Amino acid sequence: MSRKKTADRWLTVARDLKRRKARERNTLFVAEGIRSVEEVTRSHTPIQAALVTRELLADKRGAAAAAALERAGVECVTVTEEEFNSAADTKAPQGILAIAEVPVRPIGTLKPNELARTLVLDAIQDPGNVGTLIRTAAALGMRTVVALPGTADPWNAKVVRSAAGGHFHLIVTHAEVGDLLGALRHANVPLWGADASGRAVDTVTPPASLALAVGNEGAGLTTDVRGAVSEFVALPMTPGVESLNVAVAAGILLYALREGQAR
Amino acid sequence: MSRKKTADRWLTVARDLKRRKARERNTLFVAEGIRSVEEVTRSHTPIQAALVTRELLADKRGAAAAAALERAGVECVTVTEEEFNSAADTKAPQGILAIAEVPVRPIGTLKPNELARTLVLDAIQDPGNVGTLIRTAAALGMRTVVALPGTADPWNAKVVRSAAGGHFHLIVTHAEVGDLLGALRHANVPLWGADASGRAVDTVTPPASLALAVGNEGAGLTTDVRGAVSEFVALPMTPGVESLNVAVAAGILLYALREGQAR
Repeated sequence: MSRKKTADRWLTVARDLKRRKARERNTLFVAEGIRSVEEVTRSHTPIQAALVTRELLADKRGAAAAAALERAGVECVTVTEEEFNSAADTKAPQGILAIAEVPVRPIGTLKPNELARTLVLDAIQDPGNVGTLIRTAAALGMRTVVALPGTADPWNAKVVRSAAGGHFHLIVTHAEVGDLLGALRHANVPLWGADASGRAVDTVTPPASLALAVGNEGAGLTTDVRGAVSEFVALPMTPGVESLNVAVAAGILLYALREGQAR
Repeated sequence: MSRKKTADRWLTVARDLKRRKARERNTLFVAEGIRSVEEVTRSHTPIQAALVTRELLADKRGAAAAAALERAGVECVTVTEEEFNSAADTKAPQGILAIAEVPVRPIGTLKPNELARTLVLDAIQDPGNVGTLIRTAAALGMRTVVALPGTADPWNAKVVRSAAGGHFHLIVTHAEVGDLLGALRHANVPLWGADASGRAVDTVTPPASLALAVGNEGAGLTTDVRGAVSEFVALPMTPGVESLNVAVAAGILLYALREGQAR
């Protein structure tokens, strides 16, 4: 295929992958920006191709990221800045993106030890929050993040970018509520929920295995999830202060409920 | 003054307040969006005027926010959507903003008990992160947030908005490094710093009073601050995962170092 045709083909794929349906149909996602591309390359996630601009190759870190891709056997297709920006999904494109394969892990196929440290995202709409939650879960040693309906697609480019590589350190999957509950029951993993009316997290003894559900900042957990939660936990908060950002709250709860934390 | 002249005057003030210099010269700031305006009204911070659109007044929560301002004796000037957007500093303006007085609290005037729970922001550039840090500090019972040079202005409209009312629950001020260190020494408050190479935070006993410094996600703490830190603390992290978002990391550290937390 000519250079031009190859470029056009991958530009079309990248543009198409801005839509969730296209990502799901092709089980592909886009990692955008130098840091995301570095992380996906390092993770050994299969990468189909990468798009880079000439400007990116003039930058030292950018050129190194492209060289690492080539060493991994990934074709780096050079495109113009204008073409790149038409395919990019972030506000300040850095001139590099990789088209990679979504590691498909249906909830029903996860092993009990993979479900033993799970963060459940219950209708978290904001992509930046979803990304930060995945990053936080990875840093704090969770093994799985499950996105329930109403949550931004975890393979959306903005989510992947704000997760700063978090996706490649744990299992990220989505599930219907019923399928999640079935899998947790089968694996004997209790489901706890974050809720302002719950028990103060610094007074509870965390179970050996745990799935923690966090909800939308405004609305809290959905009715279906609430009904399956065996323990609600809350943070000790200053009276009168409305709430914490959901990623900050989840970070503190996961820290407080970490493994081996006896009272 | 005619209605038109009053509107033009406050529109000019609001537009001017997008610049940090203008905020500092006039010691005024802009609270934008329904939630920020609700919080600033509730806080009894002196408000000079508010700008609202007709569209805002057609919304139930918007109309209630404007009514609360009027009850507090604040003039709500109605402007067109186009005029409002020229004065707004956020991406999706909601049609309401309040022009309020910055509570000026120079670092040298703070009492020892006000400095006893302080979060220090060391060159945190991103306004969203600064706002989330102020929100987090407020929720976790800190009494003061100090912005060091290189940090986004805490009275920037984007910061005020992402802090979700946090500014009105604690003291927010900026300071030069030397002035902060002098004030902490005088108040006998130790300065600790967040650093990946520090002692694991779950193994240290927090002092009764504490100032905690957090730095830029990439660069860490500045040399001047590092030199004055008496203890570096770190979070237990999964190996290979680069880092946490600065607001999430600060939230966990402030929780782990909260008052009365014995080991």
